[in-house]
Amino acid sequence: MTRTYSDALAAHQDEPVRLQGWLLHQRRLANVSFVLLRDARGIAQVVVSDTAERERVSEYMPETVIEVRGRVVASEQATSGFEIHDPEIAVISAVTEQTPFELRRKEINAQLPTVLDNAAVALRHPAKRAAFRLSAAAMQGFRSTLDSRGFTEIATPKIVAAATESGANVFAIDYFGRPAYLAQSPQFYKQKMVGVFEQVYEIAPVFRAEPHDTVRHLAQYVSMDAEMGFIESHRDVMAVLSDVIAGMVTTSQEMASTALELLGVDLPVVPDEIPVVHFRTAQEMIEAATGESVVGEPDLAPAHERWLGEWAKTEHGSDFVFVEGYPMAKRPFYTYPDPDRPEFSQSFDLLFRGLELVTGGQRLHAYSDYLAALDGEVPEGFEGYLDAFKFGMPPHGGFAIGLERWVARLTGAQNVREVTLFPRDLNRLTP
Amino acid sequence: MTRTYSDALAAHQDEPVRLQGWLLHQRRLANVSFVLLRDARGIAQVVVSDTAERERVSEYMPETVIEVRGRVVASEQATSGFEIHDPEIAVISAVTEQTPFELRRKEINAQLPTVLDNAAVALRHPAKRAAFRLSAAAMQGFRSTLDSRGFTEIATPKIVAAATESGANVFAIDYFGRPAYLAQSPQFYKQKMVGVFEQVYEIAPVFRAEPHDTVRHLAQYVSMDAEMGFIESHRDVMAVLSDVIAGMVTTSQEMASTALELLGVDLPVVPDEIPVVHFRTAQEMIEAATGESVVGEPDLAPAHERWLGEWAKTEHGSDFVFVEGYPMAKRPFYTYPDPDRPEFSQSFDLLFRGLELVTGGQRLHAYSDYLAALDGEVPEGFEGYLDAFKFGMPPHGGFAIGLERWVARLTGAQNVREVTLFPRDLNRLTP
Repeated sequence: MTRTYSDALAAHQDEPVRLQGWLLHQRRLANVSFVLLRDARGIAQVVVSDTAERERVSEYMPETVIEVRGRVVASEQATSGFEIHDPEIAVISAVTEQTPFELRRKEINAQLPTVLDNAAVALRHPAKRAAFRLSAAAMQGFRSTLDSRGFTEIATPKIVAAATESGANVFAIDYFGRPAYLAQSPQFYKQKMVGVFEQVYEIAPVFRAEPHDTVRHLAQYVSMDAEMGFIESHRDVMAVLSDVIAGMVTTSQEMASTALELLGVDLPVVPDEIPVVHFRTAQEMIEAATGESVVGEPDLAPAHERWLGEWAKTEHGSDFVFVEGYPMAKRPFYTYPDPDRPEFSQSFDLLFRGLELVTGGQRLHAYSDYLAALDGEVPEGFEGYLDAFKFGMPPHGGFAIGLERWVARLTGAQNVREVTLFPRDLNRLTP
Repeated sequence: MTRTYSDALAAHQDEPVRLQGWLLHQRRLANVSFVLLRDARGIAQVVVSDTAERERVSEYMPETVIEVRGRVVASEQATSGFEIHDPEIAVISAVTEQTPFELRRKEINAQLPTVLDNAAVALRHPAKRAAFRLSAAAMQGFRSTLDSRGFTEIATPKIVAAATESGANVFAIDYFGRPAYLAQSPQFYKQKMVGVFEQVYEIAPVFRAEPHDTVRHLAQYVSMDAEMGFIESHRDVMAVLSDVIAGMVTTSQEMASTALELLGVDLPVVPDEIPVVHFRTAQEMIEAATGESVVGEPDLAPAHERWLGEWAKTEHGSDFVFVEGYPMAKRPFYTYPDPDRPEFSQSFDLLFRGLELVTGGQRLHAYSDYLAALDGEVPEGFEGYLDAFKFGMPPHGGFAIGLERWVARLTGAQNVREVTLFPRDLNRLTP
């Protein structure tokens, strides 16, 4: 008999079915036991009336892997509207130990460190795992949007000879006796590949030796990177990013509707035109509204980003707002300056509900501009990066979306570790 | 005017167009110059007759980024059947240096090390980059096949506390002052995740500190991993793998037909039933055919794999053949033994044209079996891995496909570095 999943009982009313999954919980009443079976798609209620079967099943520990053969019956008591009657329950894989916490409750009753220490068990909790369906949907939405625009997927080295974004916060490796580093981003490689495919993307891990133990720092996270050539300005990049975000939202609905419902996610609407405000204008607006002296500061404080998030929501009904034109002083050396106001850059942040979600912008493309930005001296290990620019690079730009940050914002997770399968940080190297 | 790509000239016959790309080559005849423009999709021929324009263009170095405005004219001389007449050619990004080798020839006239040292330029060569369109298509085919079967994409840690596959060949990292390693595979994590989603996959880099400088060893490669629960045996895994391979072939045709044509790739046909031969039977067949004493050896030599590849082609018309039942002695400790012949395993290799392409199999799922396989002693750092098995794991198995190996086989590349964007090996850490 073909296996039936827990979310497909309605299609088999009054028919015999075979379910497989994990024994989530059993509730023993005077004459009947309710056994909850969890599988990849949901939870099925199994009603055990037979005395001998009840006795046998009472011995099974939570998380025992079981197979249930029984009949589907409509029931108003069951959450799904259907339950299994007259079951035969067989053990596929026995459990002899109590799980470190109960999975049957609406939320796991344990502190985050305990949850993370026991991730392999905790992730089985329906609300926990739901967040990772959203991760999968986000990756798919990112890719399908860019595929349809003719981007090519690439895979770049994660072991590099020199730090890319900055000298700090890199992990050092012993590379066959030579020093090497884990890549902090695919930045230089995706730029090189603009010379090959014009439009490229990569979803891959990046590594930051963040010495901070905060709710938003990870030593490894998934970076969804895109880069595109033959742009007029960073505005072309922002247009593609808007499409990508819209695609990620759409794919979440298509691929992860159950997860969205379970987590009560209020999906954002991506307006056709995400509002754009220049960094300097943003500062002036904030100064005018709050009375704080903000204009001239080199960056926006978190409180200012929140203010902008509220402004975008109130004035434009948008959960998103672009801030463009960040000061060059605060952007990496490869950032393209605003030709009219060279102290500002052709770069941007995309804020989602008042928090930075994406950073991007136009990059330098002329070799001479790179030399000038590096004060004429190419740091060791950078030669290979700059070579591409010697041999003709079009105006180009791109962006990077942190997968875990996106899912955290979507689900309202307070700590990015809640939406990371097996997080790595200053203190955590296992499981 | 919207940009037109080089492969779309036919749709614009006798119309004005705007092209952008790289100056691949210019051929100067007595009264006319032929300028070849390369963009992401192909090559367009531009005919320059105007004397002043010819003079200007003659100054432009190969790889100069240019914009061409002109008129599309049908022409029997042009490879595509169309060329651009009466062009105005503007420089977008100038080049002042000769490229390290010419990109205009059918093949790059340089040794592989030189090509790899100058990858950012070499990859622009149409035949070079074509291989990476096949990589992109392979990844997409892998994912779409598994998506349609209900698999969930995951992202697992690449920094781990203990070596997974074996103690050898791992890269050591300084992890905030503690020792850590780069993951050799997502093996243990994908198994844990079977307890969560039942069916999972991941495409991500893996790292091997291979001390061998051969045509097939890389220090980093892309592993396309899948793992699935509630299987009857490794045969269920083989069935999914067959579908995945077929999906990868189909997607190559759909997404990369130009690349296939350019490289003259003879796409394999994946039969509905890929032939399966038991390891022992394979040895007996080889012994009978060759007279070599093979039966009883713990593994197949490359020559034996080639023999099996030819056998599959001749006897079954298949480019693929499964060898199942490898001796336990040659498989990792987590491999599931054949219940009837416990010296053999429920694992397999998939050979493609006589070379190993994929390794997979059923895994142990009972905690007690893991303890026994580890002689009762859990190595340090492994506790967190085994926890998942304490709390109910169904029979499961999976496989891993090396992306670069697949593309190398498909294109007939002699060296896997030819189909790796920026390879990392014993001697190579840049570019």
